[in-house]
Amino acid sequence: VSHTNKVRTTVQIHGQRYTVVGKEPSSHIRMVASMVDDKMREIKGKNISLDTSQLAVLTALNIVSEHVKIKEEYEQLLKKLEKEEDNNA
Amino acid sequence: VSHTNKVRTTVQIHGQRYTVVGKEPSSHIRMVASMVDDKMREIKGKNISLDTSQLAVLTALNIVSEHVKIKEEYEQLLKKLEKEEDNNA
Repeated sequence: VSHTNKVRTTVQIHGQRYTVVGKEPSSHIRMVASMVDDKMREIKGKNISLDTSQLAVLTALNIVSEHVKIKEEYEQLLKKLEKEEDNNA
Repeated sequence: VSHTNKVRTTVQIHGQRYTVVGKEPSSHIRMVASMVDDKMREIKGKNISLDTSQLAVLTALNIVSEHVKIKEEYEQLLKKLEKEEDNNA
């Protein structure tokens, strides 16, 4: 880690290399990249005619959909936890 | 909703139309599509030279990164909640 706290990580997704610069550790970026790569392969398997940009957009769409659902669950859980803490106060 | 429970929703992302078929309500798909579209525009603004497939892959990478982080928080919260419930039992 340099004095600017910027970490450079190069990953390969769907056959192409990407260099990511950010605060996240390389291990996190590599895990995330492999999840995107897996999801692209999965969607490509079901939709063989998609080009790379369509495939990547549909991958993003799938991931955001899951993200929104888990975020809603998370917020409900947070509310439940706050309510229990109020009851215990 | 037809007897197969499949919902077809057409959305526009980064100037291209996509038809999504699935169990999710159209409102969910439209919200998710607009989040992907916004994120692509945001990343394109910072990296003007990216082509559409690179842009979409980097968008997916950003979204998965946030997804993994919130999922970890969610799991920690879940553990905390279970522990409190054990203490109250």
